[in-house]
Amino acid sequence: MSLRLEKRLKTALLPVSLVFLLLMAPAVSGSEAGNTGGPGKENRVPALMPVPARIQLSQDKFRIDEKFYAGGQEQPGGRVFKAVARFMFRLSGRTGLFLKQDFLADQTPGPNTRLFYRYGRTGRLLPYEDESYELKIDKERIELQAPTDLGVLRGLETLLQLLSADEQGYYFPVGRVEDRPRFTWRGLLIDSCRHFMPLEVIKRNLLAMASVKLNVLHWHLSEDQGFRVESRTFPRLHQLGSDGMYYTQDQIREIIGFASDLGIRVMPEFDIPGHSTSWFVGYPEYASAPGPYRIERGFGVFHPVFNPANPDTYKFFNRFFREMASLFPDPYLHIGGDEVEAAHWKQNQQIQAFMKKHNLADNHALQAYFNQQILKILTRYNKKMVGWDEIYQPGLPKDIVIQSWRGTQALVDGARRGYQGILSNGYYIDLCETAERHYLNDPIPPDSPLTEAEKKLILGGEATMWAELVSPETVDSRIWPRTAAIAERLWSPQEVRDVDDMYHRLAIISVQLEEHGVQHLKNQDMMLRRLVGSSAVSSTEMAALQSLARISEPVKGYARHSLGRKYTSLAPLTRFVDSCFPESLEARDFIKLADGYVSTRNSENQQKLKDAFNQLAVVSSQAVALAGRIPVLNEIKPLAENLGQLVAIGSAALSYLASKKGPQDGWLETQKNLLMELKKPQAECQLAIIPAVEKLLVALEEGHK
Amino acid sequence: MSLRLEKRLKTALLPVSLVFLLLMAPAVSGSEAGNTGGPGKENRVPALMPVPARIQLSQDKFRIDEKFYAGGQEQPGGRVFKAVARFMFRLSGRTGLFLKQDFLADQTPGPNTRLFYRYGRTGRLLPYEDESYELKIDKERIELQAPTDLGVLRGLETLLQLLSADEQGYYFPVGRVEDRPRFTWRGLLIDSCRHFMPLEVIKRNLLAMASVKLNVLHWHLSEDQGFRVESRTFPRLHQLGSDGMYYTQDQIREIIGFASDLGIRVMPEFDIPGHSTSWFVGYPEYASAPGPYRIERGFGVFHPVFNPANPDTYKFFNRFFREMASLFPDPYLHIGGDEVEAAHWKQNQQIQAFMKKHNLADNHALQAYFNQQILKILTRYNKKMVGWDEIYQPGLPKDIVIQSWRGTQALVDGARRGYQGILSNGYYIDLCETAERHYLNDPIPPDSPLTEAEKKLILGGEATMWAELVSPETVDSRIWPRTAAIAERLWSPQEVRDVDDMYHRLAIISVQLEEHGVQHLKNQDMMLRRLVGSSAVSSTEMAALQSLARISEPVKGYARHSLGRKYTSLAPLTRFVDSCFPESLEARDFIKLADGYVSTRNSENQQKLKDAFNQLAVVSSQAVALAGRIPVLNEIKPLAENLGQLVAIGSAALSYLASKKGPQDGWLETQKNLLMELKKPQAECQLAIIPAVEKLLVALEEGHK
Repeated sequence: MSLRLEKRLKTALLPVSLVFLLLMAPAVSGSEAGNTGGPGKENRVPALMPVPARIQLSQDKFRIDEKFYAGGQEQPGGRVFKAVARFMFRLSGRTGLFLKQDFLADQTPGPNTRLFYRYGRTGRLLPYEDESYELKIDKERIELQAPTDLGVLRGLETLLQLLSADEQGYYFPVGRVEDRPRFTWRGLLIDSCRHFMPLEVIKRNLLAMASVKLNVLHWHLSEDQGFRVESRTFPRLHQLGSDGMYYTQDQIREIIGFASDLGIRVMPEFDIPGHSTSWFVGYPEYASAPGPYRIERGFGVFHPVFNPANPDTYKFFNRFFREMASLFPDPYLHIGGDEVEAAHWKQNQQIQAFMKKHNLADNHALQAYFNQQILKILTRYNKKMVGWDEIYQPGLPKDIVIQSWRGTQALVDGARRGYQGILSNGYYIDLCETAERHYLNDPIPPDSPLTEAEKKLILGGEATMWAELVSPETVDSRIWPRTAAIAERLWSPQEVRDVDDMYHRLAIISVQLEEHGVQHLKNQDMMLRRLVGSSAVSSTEMAALQSLARISEPVKGYARHSLGRKYTSLAPLTRFVDSCFPESLEARDFIKLADGYVSTRNSENQQKLKDAFNQLAVVSSQAVALAGRIPVLNEIKPLAENLGQLVAIGSAALSYLASKKGPQDGWLETQKNLLMELKKPQAECQLAIIPAVEKLLVALEEGHK
Repeated sequence: MSLRLEKRLKTALLPVSLVFLLLMAPAVSGSEAGNTGGPGKENRVPALMPVPARIQLSQDKFRIDEKFYAGGQEQPGGRVFKAVARFMFRLSGRTGLFLKQDFLADQTPGPNTRLFYRYGRTGRLLPYEDESYELKIDKERIELQAPTDLGVLRGLETLLQLLSADEQGYYFPVGRVEDRPRFTWRGLLIDSCRHFMPLEVIKRNLLAMASVKLNVLHWHLSEDQGFRVESRTFPRLHQLGSDGMYYTQDQIREIIGFASDLGIRVMPEFDIPGHSTSWFVGYPEYASAPGPYRIERGFGVFHPVFNPANPDTYKFFNRFFREMASLFPDPYLHIGGDEVEAAHWKQNQQIQAFMKKHNLADNHALQAYFNQQILKILTRYNKKMVGWDEIYQPGLPKDIVIQSWRGTQALVDGARRGYQGILSNGYYIDLCETAERHYLNDPIPPDSPLTEAEKKLILGGEATMWAELVSPETVDSRIWPRTAAIAERLWSPQEVRDVDDMYHRLAIISVQLEEHGVQHLKNQDMMLRRLVGSSAVSSTEMAALQSLARISEPVKGYARHSLGRKYTSLAPLTRFVDSCFPESLEARDFIKLADGYVSTRNSENQQKLKDAFNQLAVVSSQAVALAGRIPVLNEIKPLAENLGQLVAIGSAALSYLASKKGPQDGWLETQKNLLMELKKPQAECQLAIIPAVEKLLVALEEGHK
């Protein structure tokens, strides 16, 4: 079976039909708090993310009732058996149906079975493994088949996303899906070092990853700020380097098993020779400068670095990687290699002498020497090396993988030299950029200069959740839902890139993700409740605070580090800015509304804008009052005041546009200058709806000319 | 030090000052969504729960800024060191202050230290251990001292609850607390069997328990529906008896260590000889009837039971309890012993012969024989036996503990016979009763017939979270905040029993509990979002659904099991009823409002009621519309319609009351009958605001007479 299916999928197949259908579907909003949208029609196209390679749906329906049975070849304990059990729990959870099947005990196919699953062989958790599947939904029967069990897992996620409702009940649309990923390496990096992430954070994010078909957890496990794995060979690593916050080897194995059940690889990263302060708290003898060392609390690039000239360093790494190679089964091991500060190398006479003796011209050459030794060690333990851009040097074996934080050009250069690469530049989700920006960032863009053979070396990409400014409470909201858009970029055909359509689906998927326990939506109100604390507030004030949070965004990029506060790993990440989503989907809707009005000047949109401005004026005044009373909210007073000013400008512009009587001379100029002022960060936030008012001003200016 | 402090506390001390202060304080609402309340005054008394034995506060303030340092004798890794680190994180989280102290690395007292902690010795996790503490807050210095480190832990929680704010910033009120618990055994039972509770559920609830000074986790680990602990001696117990959902021994140790850090004992319960179906899936040879057995999916009392006549049964338990006795360090081990069904005993000829031979007159005598054998085994491994009421029999040693699910009378009987007891009757939080009911339920009520010596045998009580109808998503909302009221009953002086005051504080504490990750508040909206799914809804409809959920409660007691749906451990617990809080604090406020109006007839309350009825009419119509469109919400249509009818009655009654023009003859009778109809459960829920309308009708009737 597997070969036939594989061949069929290889001839595939633009997703034209789905994209077409989606564009034709009425705009339906998800149920995320605050989203608005009228009742939609029946027979909407379900929100699929990532969009499958090929899909055809009809108007017919497979009806779901409590007699829905799933069956296949798998025994309890098997990966697919467990996945089907989760599928049934989720199906039951969404529909409220009391399913009759005891799906935890028995999935033997029988006369009642309606969903049949079948696969050829157990998939290996390796790049290039077959994850394709085929899903046939008829009115009375569903078949899910795949060359490997991994394909069945991916197909179950698609099937669940197809769940639809009408007034008669729940159903799957009759149709057919043939699907396979565009890229084989679809990852999420989680940094457990800058802030430690307890096991449950990793687990719930693995579940969420699986639901959008990501397949690599890149686990960043050592940093200046913490060494996070129990080492039995060198116990002072975790004992002295982690403040007691590390994963035991049993917990690591638990996560690897959990991920394996989801068809997700776990690739560890031990970042060396820089970013390594925490190692030296217990083992200063391998550093390039004498200790003692303390765990780093600040963020940035620091001086502590391994001593490449000390032969004991390699004895240490030999034993260390022997231990870690057996703990982590993945064939790849990431050694970081980024941002090496050479100050301690320069100051160390022994190292300088070593460089001279070995003809190592500069620090880059010294790091290359170091990497060569590490490569030998990894090879000894059957691990392939992965590293950031900096690890590249001529002569490395061709089975290593270079992960690019610097950009697509580095990836292109690597591929031309014959090296495999994965893209992370453009997927830095910690920077609070828009989903759109990540979504349009393609590891192999349409204008790629690479040959087809070279393109095959681009394995995929990884979203990177660096953890300087996230805690276990906020990390989910920095990952989701935007990472679902990245997951689609890495799975779906290149041609799937309709941004509005993506956002439409993203809002729905975002709510579905909550099923896995990720807290990206629900922690916002919780955090706002904490900020208010036991202070007395009216429900109007509370609502105003929530509204302000929903239209505000943290400043982008690394700006939070340069706005006056010195962040450390002990700093509170509980402030208003931390409660804000990286991207306000409500602001995006509002800007769309302004856009719509500007281009059509229709009176319905005008009224909506007017109503919204009136509401926001109340939000502003209530939030100002609240901010004045509660110490931890004092900082948002200017933000709330700015909202008031913004609303005043917007309302006035709207009146001028509606009345077609232009403003007085100089008014526009003044408002534009004021708008520049309002764009300045307040409380490390920005008002995400400013572009809506800008659009009104531009329209006014153009009408005025 | 310890003796002196203990003596001082023994002479203590009615909490008159605090109760007085609280009653005088302006009513302040917490920030829980939907609670209303105007801006309050400065210098409110902080919400303490449990209320300390003695407290005096002044108007002076200890100001908190980023230079707040905590210091004491403890080294990293110590229980108090970690507790202080958590305290500092939470303080920083609530205030947004960037504390300068590296409290994870160093708590050595120095010139900057403002909070000094000190204790006499490491506390043992045993009943009667000293948990008292003394807290002195001056304007520039705070001292927290206690005979044991456990006292310091308890005191830190009190100090954090004292955190207050005014327009100048955050502060602790200057004052003094001398505190010790009334009862030594203050527990929460978590049933991990009917529904498996992942590790993080246990952890976050342990944190929450510690913050209200509970000190025993009673962990219900075996049941008909699942055997939840890895057994290396009898591996088929967890392999075949758990559907793969069990705790490894490492995870058990992790929880015990986590709880110990919080000063909480972990007492395991293995329920025998009944409630034991899951054991027999792997080991049918110890059952009273031949197998094979399957894990039970239903709920109730079932026939499978251990065979007390088989000598191998005791060999099995000898090895089993040897293993578990070394896994769980607590000196107490709970053997359940409740609800033994004798059907299989009666059917088994060998057992009947055994009874005759040993002069065991009835099944109770047979269970007593069984318990005697188990007692010998437990004694061999240095464990004291705990069991439910049914384990009592004459001649048991006096160091066992009887836990009463039957009632206070059983506890009294036990104490008179010289047995120690703990109360759970009245603390069954799974029954969705009010906090008030649990709060007023006293293990030693004021009218207790016991002598002082006998009273000493009443060790305390335990809230019981039986898990038939809770999932990891909903369990927190069934535990919190009501269990905080039980915690107060068990810690605070008997005289602290002002219900309104308790509710006032409970709303604030409920929000503070979210800090520990418990999801009792935030999962409601999440669950409602899931129910709506990808269906199109307007924001008004979504708000209506939320409002309906906030004034609805699940039916009380065991009624959900007899309303037409057969619950099993696979049934969905994701429906509207599951999203509702066991007790609607908003409904309580609303009833209070009606009460206030009825007694004062003041026009402000009248207007508030009128506005609320108008709003609820919109809620009703919007929810009806939504329920009609979304299959899983269909069932709430009658509930939403009932709300409309209720509002109509309430509005009419209000008009009559206001106009002082009575209704027509027969109107009242008709409405009262209608109200009876509206009280019938719909969607397994009840409208919690019905009593408000009832009060209006009663007032009308009385005015009419």
